[in-house]
Amino acid sequence: MRFEVTTLGTGAALPARGRFPSAQLLNVHDQLYLIDCGEGTQERLRMAGVNMNRIGQILISHLHGDHYLGLMGLISSMHLNGRENVLHVHARAELKEVIDLQLRVSRTYLRFPLEFHPLPSQSGELIIDDPKVRVTALELTHRIPTTGFLFTEVSQLRRIKPEAVDRIPHFARTRVKEGEDLVTADGGVIANSELTNDPPPSRRYAYCCDTAYKPDLVPHLMGVDLLYHEATFTELLAARAKETMHSTARQAALIAKQANVGTLLLGHFSSRYKSEEELLIEARQEFPNVLAAEEGKTFFIHQQIMV
Amino acid sequence: MRFEVTTLGTGAALPARGRFPSAQLLNVHDQLYLIDCGEGTQERLRMAGVNMNRIGQILISHLHGDHYLGLMGLISSMHLNGRENVLHVHARAELKEVIDLQLRVSRTYLRFPLEFHPLPSQSGELIIDDPKVRVTALELTHRIPTTGFLFTEVSQLRRIKPEAVDRIPHFARTRVKEGEDLVTADGGVIANSELTNDPPPSRRYAYCCDTAYKPDLVPHLMGVDLLYHEATFTELLAARAKETMHSTARQAALIAKQANVGTLLLGHFSSRYKSEEELLIEARQEFPNVLAAEEGKTFFIHQQIMV
Repeated sequence: MRFEVTTLGTGAALPARGRFPSAQLLNVHDQLYLIDCGEGTQERLRMAGVNMNRIGQILISHLHGDHYLGLMGLISSMHLNGRENVLHVHARAELKEVIDLQLRVSRTYLRFPLEFHPLPSQSGELIIDDPKVRVTALELTHRIPTTGFLFTEVSQLRRIKPEAVDRIPHFARTRVKEGEDLVTADGGVIANSELTNDPPPSRRYAYCCDTAYKPDLVPHLMGVDLLYHEATFTELLAARAKETMHSTARQAALIAKQANVGTLLLGHFSSRYKSEEELLIEARQEFPNVLAAEEGKTFFIHQQIMV
Repeated sequence: MRFEVTTLGTGAALPARGRFPSAQLLNVHDQLYLIDCGEGTQERLRMAGVNMNRIGQILISHLHGDHYLGLMGLISSMHLNGRENVLHVHARAELKEVIDLQLRVSRTYLRFPLEFHPLPSQSGELIIDDPKVRVTALELTHRIPTTGFLFTEVSQLRRIKPEAVDRIPHFARTRVKEGEDLVTADGGVIANSELTNDPPPSRRYAYCCDTAYKPDLVPHLMGVDLLYHEATFTELLAARAKETMHSTARQAALIAKQANVGTLLLGHFSSRYKSEEELLIEARQEFPNVLAAEEGKTFFIHQQIMV
């Protein structure tokens, strides 16, 4: 069962050095979620070989252009590509005005339903409740209202113990996997715990971009498998980070350390950095498991199966 | 004196096959005009090595996304790149709403003045009256109000005949080049026509995109040096061209032939065409001087100096 993130754009507001504005594709059990949609995202999706019409939901963190200016072009291309399935867009309410105005001036009547969902502002509020994943909001601190996203895989079925397979009639297996005890042909009851092991733990991915250093996110991020946290600057520019309400690589790593996450993924790099190396080095002084996002690169969150 | 067009995007609404949405850079005597600004135009400008802050005027033909969705990103990057000089934007009045709304939701306060000029709708109306170039509107026929642009180089100074150089005192040369007769030291008068030749003819460039076949453009296009005319389809899809209010390559060539233009430049190719070859072949059956626009390619209009 897939749970993977492809980083399509890893730059900050000014695109440069082969970095593009923010966009990520999250694949959870083959359901596709697009997180942010900077200018040129449709081109990045094409380069990554993604069929854009398979994207079911788009989440926009905030309304700075480098996080949403690719949305109208993507919607238009979905329309021209014959999309019919509903597209859910989650963003601050003002984005609906922006979409509606632009559809109106171009006299575009979409062939598919676009359902707009205004984002809540408080951390922990539920945004998406899909069969395979739940998404909750993370209230970030930036110059305009900004929301991060926590994706939690919905618990899977319990796993039948290899030694118990022969004791469970075929017709009863689904219910046993769902946690029911087994009633045998002679009326006896076998406790579910004798027959099954716990399902693999739900995988979790958090997206925190853009935000100033915000330690009160930590309780929401405890133990997530992968944390994407912006690292626009190094500590040398901590004052600039504070002024523009961005984070340094060290601050991202402090959040990762305090929340004891599995892996920290850095991104949203200022165009002043030729390479991510200095940001990685700074972060690793606080937290060992750090990777740098890269255009078109996929990061896999593997299932930990316990037997 | 430069008069050249760089085609930055030559595709139709659906970007594909290495073609990008409409955008062109016109350089007239080192003044830069951007014509249309599809998504990703700032990236194309960067690839072409153009300093975006040197662009003084942007003209948007119409409000279909593939002609303007790159504008907000470009404006934002100009802002972040420290632009201070005024930017003139010429487009249908509704675009001002689109710009203002997006500046508002992102809480962006531009560091440079953006002057918006609503486009007139009638062919022949003056849009820009710069020292080196005049731009007039061309009313096109498309699904929404659409304007083409005719760029005419402002007449240059008359050229002093080589054999007359020694007869004109240095201080009088500018006035003679401007067409005045020469009053000699002894009070005599030498007619300007004895001293000078006509200046090189004003060069002209016309941009007609998007439009259905529209023969009543011809009187406005008579003898232009370079005509960019959209050729979204071949004649095989003439019905589709008519329905979507686009042109075929043959129709573009018919306009070029009737207007007796110097060179016809085709563009706005539907993504269904793998190569421009079939569009070129079709157009050349009607008109010989046809070229295909190409991402990043520059087309020079040379000065014809007559002596």
